[in-house]
Amino acid sequence: MDSVDTNPAASVEGCSFQPLNPEDVRACLYKAADFITDYYISIESMPVLPDVKPGYLRNELMASPPEHSAPFDVTMKELRTSVVPGMMHWANPNFFAFFPSTNSAAAIAGELIASAMNTVGFTWQAAPAATEMEVLVLDWLAQLLRLPASFMNRTSAGHGTGGGVILGTTSEAMLVTLVAARDAALRRSGSNGVDRITRLTVYASNQTHSTFFKACRLTDFDPANLRSIPTGPETDYGLDPAKLLEIMHADFRASLVPTYICATVGTTSSNAVDPVGAVADVAAMFNAWVHVDAAYAGSACICPEFRHYIDGVEHVDSISMSPHKWLLTCLDCTCLWVRNTHRLTDALQMNPEYLKNDATESGMATDLKDMQVGVGRRFRGLKLWMVMRTYGTTKLQEHIRSDVAMAKAFEELVRADDRFEIVVPRNFALVCFRIRACGAMTEEVADEVNHLLMDRLNISGKAYLAHTVVGRRFTLRFAVGSSMQEERHVRRRSCNNGVHQLMCSINYYCL
Amino acid sequence: MDSVDTNPAASVEGCSFQPLNPEDVRACLYKAADFITDYYISIESMPVLPDVKPGYLRNELMASPPEHSAPFDVTMKELRTSVVPGMMHWANPNFFAFFPSTNSAAAIAGELIASAMNTVGFTWQAAPAATEMEVLVLDWLAQLLRLPASFMNRTSAGHGTGGGVILGTTSEAMLVTLVAARDAALRRSGSNGVDRITRLTVYASNQTHSTFFKACRLTDFDPANLRSIPTGPETDYGLDPAKLLEIMHADFRASLVPTYICATVGTTSSNAVDPVGAVADVAAMFNAWVHVDAAYAGSACICPEFRHYIDGVEHVDSISMSPHKWLLTCLDCTCLWVRNTHRLTDALQMNPEYLKNDATESGMATDLKDMQVGVGRRFRGLKLWMVMRTYGTTKLQEHIRSDVAMAKAFEELVRADDRFEIVVPRNFALVCFRIRACGAMTEEVADEVNHLLMDRLNISGKAYLAHTVVGRRFTLRFAVGSSMQEERHVRRRSCNNGVHQLMCSINYYCL
Repeated sequence: MDSVDTNPAASVEGCSFQPLNPEDVRACLYKAADFITDYYISIESMPVLPDVKPGYLRNELMASPPEHSAPFDVTMKELRTSVVPGMMHWANPNFFAFFPSTNSAAAIAGELIASAMNTVGFTWQAAPAATEMEVLVLDWLAQLLRLPASFMNRTSAGHGTGGGVILGTTSEAMLVTLVAARDAALRRSGSNGVDRITRLTVYASNQTHSTFFKACRLTDFDPANLRSIPTGPETDYGLDPAKLLEIMHADFRASLVPTYICATVGTTSSNAVDPVGAVADVAAMFNAWVHVDAAYAGSACICPEFRHYIDGVEHVDSISMSPHKWLLTCLDCTCLWVRNTHRLTDALQMNPEYLKNDATESGMATDLKDMQVGVGRRFRGLKLWMVMRTYGTTKLQEHIRSDVAMAKAFEELVRADDRFEIVVPRNFALVCFRIRACGAMTEEVADEVNHLLMDRLNISGKAYLAHTVVGRRFTLRFAVGSSMQEERHVRRRSCNNGVHQLMCSINYYCL
Repeated sequence: MDSVDTNPAASVEGCSFQPLNPEDVRACLYKAADFITDYYISIESMPVLPDVKPGYLRNELMASPPEHSAPFDVTMKELRTSVVPGMMHWANPNFFAFFPSTNSAAAIAGELIASAMNTVGFTWQAAPAATEMEVLVLDWLAQLLRLPASFMNRTSAGHGTGGGVILGTTSEAMLVTLVAARDAALRRSGSNGVDRITRLTVYASNQTHSTFFKACRLTDFDPANLRSIPTGPETDYGLDPAKLLEIMHADFRASLVPTYICATVGTTSSNAVDPVGAVADVAAMFNAWVHVDAAYAGSACICPEFRHYIDGVEHVDSISMSPHKWLLTCLDCTCLWVRNTHRLTDALQMNPEYLKNDATESGMATDLKDMQVGVGRRFRGLKLWMVMRTYGTTKLQEHIRSDVAMAKAFEELVRADDRFEIVVPRNFALVCFRIRACGAMTEEVADEVNHLLMDRLNISGKAYLAHTVVGRRFTLRFAVGSSMQEERHVRRRSCNNGVHQLMCSINYYCL
């Protein structure tokens, strides 16, 4: 490779500009690969949270775009010196905030190849292999999750009525299913227009991600008709089906139309689990659409010991989960399955002249544009297929179990220290804990102390945590799973052990 | 590199699974880079359209996910033998369909690095550098497009009221601006709810991409209130402001509320251009939101000679364009700018407890989640910055001009051959042409002959074209711009010359 001129700008001096000159591409990608390797090797030495202020990057880089081309090395140098120091390092093994964005060599390579092929798979015809790959890998993952055959595109018995699509985020999965449910409810009420929209109601626990209520607003459900159902410690903040029934029934009696329920398996706040089967039973009484949001915890359900969390899924209408959260696949990758794809495509299909083609007209092909917001789409299935093909079910399960084991280890450390309390039972790899109010300390003061602990830890750069409020109490969230936390940070329990370091930091900074 | 065990599965046998082992990552990425280089070198020899049928890939690959891990080489081998032969090769220089998805070494490297960093930039705090980079590069591109300062986040005078966000597709840009316009119109009509939704009307020419009307349906505008305004050859299929005024006025008199107009610069069908300034003048009379969809042609507006197509943009509310179409940036990359970011964030902001942070509360930071559908988001600005930083304005303009020159050369070949006609004047790098009905041939028969020509060309695998219908006539679309079409295919006019080959194929297959 040394003989290659690795300057894509210089290599075109004097002749025409070739932005995809194959050897330039190789040279740039080798440099990027070396940068990434160095980044991973050194990441643990970098502060998780950077010490920068809003506007910092503009002061580092040019305020206006350069007129002339520059060697690729100049771009890489600015990336190293100006961008990296301002990053929150999600891949740092001492990152415990939000949900981790897990990743793997196979996923990154898959996304790289997809970027280079750069197909646009709106219809089967426009990208046969990309469409087929997405359909196949969703059937693969459905098998791992033991979803019923009704959610699959192909089963051993042939074509199914169900199927899936890969979207960017859970919010998109909610949005497209909300639209399908909304339009079906409007049609059932004898209206093709929107004049009855104010009669439709939607339901979710008050632990549901805010993006659900945002998706309801985007799709124009009436703010007065969004039911946020209270939960409490008696159900570990899971949805109580009896409460759901009562509220839906009251709406029904008031001549409203219960339309859609979002059940969450593993809430963002505290990993609460809504009882999928019981929720579906209630929904069936009103012919309401049930969507299961298993964005984070869905990945765990590839392990038999966690599969029970989605029991009852055979009675829901749709389910989504995000391999970009916990299945070693870099962003974006949210998988949505529906039991009847026609319920989605009826709402989302558009066939302008310039997209008409024989494969669509044959009825044999899947056109993925009809299951999403937009038209254009990347080769989205490739990276997920490369992850599943390379690592196999066994390694993926090992990865989930390793994270859960680490979370369990942390939970035990917390339980063993009576200055702390576990706020809700741990279900997966998230531990919700706080400094306990003791002696004369009120709960309100304990809230402040916990906030202070979090801020000090985060500012130190040695670890990064996020918080939530559970049952009105400020609660620290310790989310395991950053992909470099494996082994070194759990089993060897070295001085670099993330858990160990966190507990040391707590002692050092706070107590 | 040869000494490295390039099997990420094997390297973890006997010890814990390390999905991001740095040397495994390097080895996989080198292999992927070599694959990509070979792919680009050999792409011209592959048929553009593959000879596969729906379901083909399932017959090639395993129907169920593998239980055990496999060497990365096995994954790559299946990619080569089963996936590549089923692909529509958008990067093939003989691909002339739809709009090209242009690409470059810098863009692919940028996306690769973003995948590896795998940050999730919902708030500034969660990803400072990624947020700052996106804000900066949108200001850079705004400068290149000579957008007014009101669309920028920072100007020489300090903070502006405007700004932008990078989204996945134009459809998302339409969706979020439609919601902002809808909710503002509802508020103006004295309603905070949705009971007046059936009064709101939206407008676009009948040449507007179907995804606009889909976005209107997603956001619940009444199908009866979507005005698709007829266009004709007298305006080269651009929107006639007088017709727009007449229709809006009629709606206003009927007590409807004109809410949103989508003006397109470079329609998908034929590259028609709606007159931005004149449309904005009409909209101002009704206080309606004007969005400019310049998905494809916006890239050309970085050249002074094409900038006039968006004249009047200083009077619109928002504009979007997609560098993934024509600015050498791989998918997904759609840039949206709005004149007043608060009009977007007022509709889209959600602040759950677990995302609260000091930077947001300071009011100094931009939280990009509040300008999009979902919450999660990749490091979206990086690849676009790497493209602009590496190639500079000069090379980007050269790239646009080279494509336009090639389209012009093709147009001249068509014009010189009296068997053909140019259906609408060429504005950018898309040529709309057809076999002319002559002698006893009716226009309907000519339609069929054109369809046959397209099918035969496409099935040959030697070139790939798409079609449209303009003024009821079946029309062939010849879209230049696949990134490997540079130089070799235009200037040298070799026997591999795409234009030459296309004309030969037309002669061979059809006439």
